[in-house]
Amino acid sequence: MKDYGTLYQHGTLALLVPGLLKGTMKIGELLKHGDTGIGTGEGLDGELIILDGKPYQVNGKGKVQIVSKDFTLPFSSVSWAKYQHLVDLENVDMSDFSKQMISLSKSANTFFSIKAQGTFTNIKTRAAKKSEHPYKTLSETADKQAVFTKDKVEGTLLGYYAPEIFNGAAVGGFHYHFLSDNHKFGGHVLSFHIEQASVYAQQFDTLEQHLPVEDKDYMKHDFSDDDVAGSIEKSEK
Amino acid sequence: MKDYGTLYQHGTLALLVPGLLKGTMKIGELLKHGDTGIGTGEGLDGELIILDGKPYQVNGKGKVQIVSKDFTLPFSSVSWAKYQHLVDLENVDMSDFSKQMISLSKSANTFFSIKAQGTFTNIKTRAAKKSEHPYKTLSETADKQAVFTKDKVEGTLLGYYAPEIFNGAAVGGFHYHFLSDNHKFGGHVLSFHIEQASVYAQQFDTLEQHLPVEDKDYMKHDFSDDDVAGSIEKSEK
Repeated sequence: MKDYGTLYQHGTLALLVPGLLKGTMKIGELLKHGDTGIGTGEGLDGELIILDGKPYQVNGKGKVQIVSKDFTLPFSSVSWAKYQHLVDLENVDMSDFSKQMISLSKSANTFFSIKAQGTFTNIKTRAAKKSEHPYKTLSETADKQAVFTKDKVEGTLLGYYAPEIFNGAAVGGFHYHFLSDNHKFGGHVLSFHIEQASVYAQQFDTLEQHLPVEDKDYMKHDFSDDDVAGSIEKSEK
Repeated sequence: MKDYGTLYQHGTLALLVPGLLKGTMKIGELLKHGDTGIGTGEGLDGELIILDGKPYQVNGKGKVQIVSKDFTLPFSSVSWAKYQHLVDLENVDMSDFSKQMISLSKSANTFFSIKAQGTFTNIKTRAAKKSEHPYKTLSETADKQAVFTKDKVEGTLLGYYAPEIFNGAAVGGFHYHFLSDNHKFGGHVLSFHIEQASVYAQQFDTLEQHLPVEDKDYMKHDFSDDDVAGSIEKSEK
C-alpha cells in the first residue's frame, strides 16, 4: 500500500558517525517502501538518489549507475512520490532556496520532500568512496570524499527536510541529493545556484523509522561519546 | 494489522514543552495502533496507561477512570502487546531497575517496552491537572502537578525506552506509568522500589512517529527558543 503521507527511513544518520556502515537493508526491500529517495551504500559506497523507482548511485569516481538488487544500504530515506507544484524560481542560491522552501511549504515542524527540476549553475556535489570493514568514522571518510562541480547542468534536486529535534535520526534541516538529466553528474549536494527551476513539494505526517536491530555491531555500540550533531554538521550540511 | 515490531507515537514530547496541548487525536483512533501504551490528555489532562486495550486515566486528583471514545490526546505512545518474560526481580530501585532492563534486553539502541507486574513499595507518581487554552508551558504545569505515594501496592509498571538521539521526539531513556491492580492508584512514575515482580520485555525495530500536521498552532510554532531537553529532564524524568 502506497502511503503518500509517510517518510520511511532505514538506519539513522547517527549510526554513520562512528562508522556502523554495514549494509543492513537490500535495495529491493527498500523499494517496497517508496519510489523516491536518498541514501548511501555499505561502507559509504557512493550517494544514492532514487527517482521513479530507479536507484541511481553516484560512486566515489563520480560515475552514475543503477545499482543491482543485492546492493545493501546502512541508511536511506524513501517515500512514494506525490508532489504538488510549489513555485517556479529563478536565480536563487542554496541557503535562500532552503529558507523559501520552509516558508512556502509552511512545514517547518514536520517532514517534507522537495523536488526541483531545471537548470543549475555552480553546483558542487560529493560522493564518498566505499570503505571496507573495519570502517572509519563518518568524519574520516568525509575528509577523503571526492568533490565534483558543474558550471551549468540540467537535472533534478531531491531534498528531504527534518525538524531540528530529529537531527541525529536524520539530518535536521535539508539533505539534498542531485542527478543530472543526462545521468552523468550527481551526488550529495554541497552547494548550488538555480538558474531556473520548477519546484514541487510533498508533506509527510509520519516518519516510519526502521532500525537495524539484527546488526550486532549496531546494537552493541555505545553512542554516548559520539559527537553526532557535530559530525552531521561537518559532514552532511 | 497488528505489527508487534512497531511503536506508534502521536505527537512529540517537544510539543508539550511550549504548551501545544491541544488534543489532536481521539483515543478511538489511537487504539487502532495498539492495545498498550502511555500518554496524556488535552491540556495535560492526567496520565494515561493503556493495558489490554483499555485506556485508564489517572486524573489530577489521582482518580482512575476509563476515558470515553471522544477523549483527545496531544501525545501518546502505543504498541500491540507481545511481551516475552525477561526476568523475575526482588528488592530493586528505579535506577537499578532501568540499568538492568537495558543490560538484559540488549536493546539500548532501539525502542522497547517493559512491563513489570508485582508488588511495589515506596512508589511515587504524579498526574497533571487539566489546563485550558491558552495553555501554560510543560514546566509551569509540572510545577503544579499533584504527587501521590503508596507504601505498598500491587500493580503494573509500563515503561517505554527510547535511544538518546530520540530525546525530544520521546523521552530519551525510560518513561514509566503505573496502574495498581485495584485501579485506585497510578500515574506518571517518579520513583519506586520493587519488592518482587515478574518483568516482561518487547523490542521494536520501528518507530512510527505521527505528527499533528492539521494543528495550525503546532505547525506555526517556532521551537528554536524552547529548551526541549532541559524541560524534559525537569518534568518527565
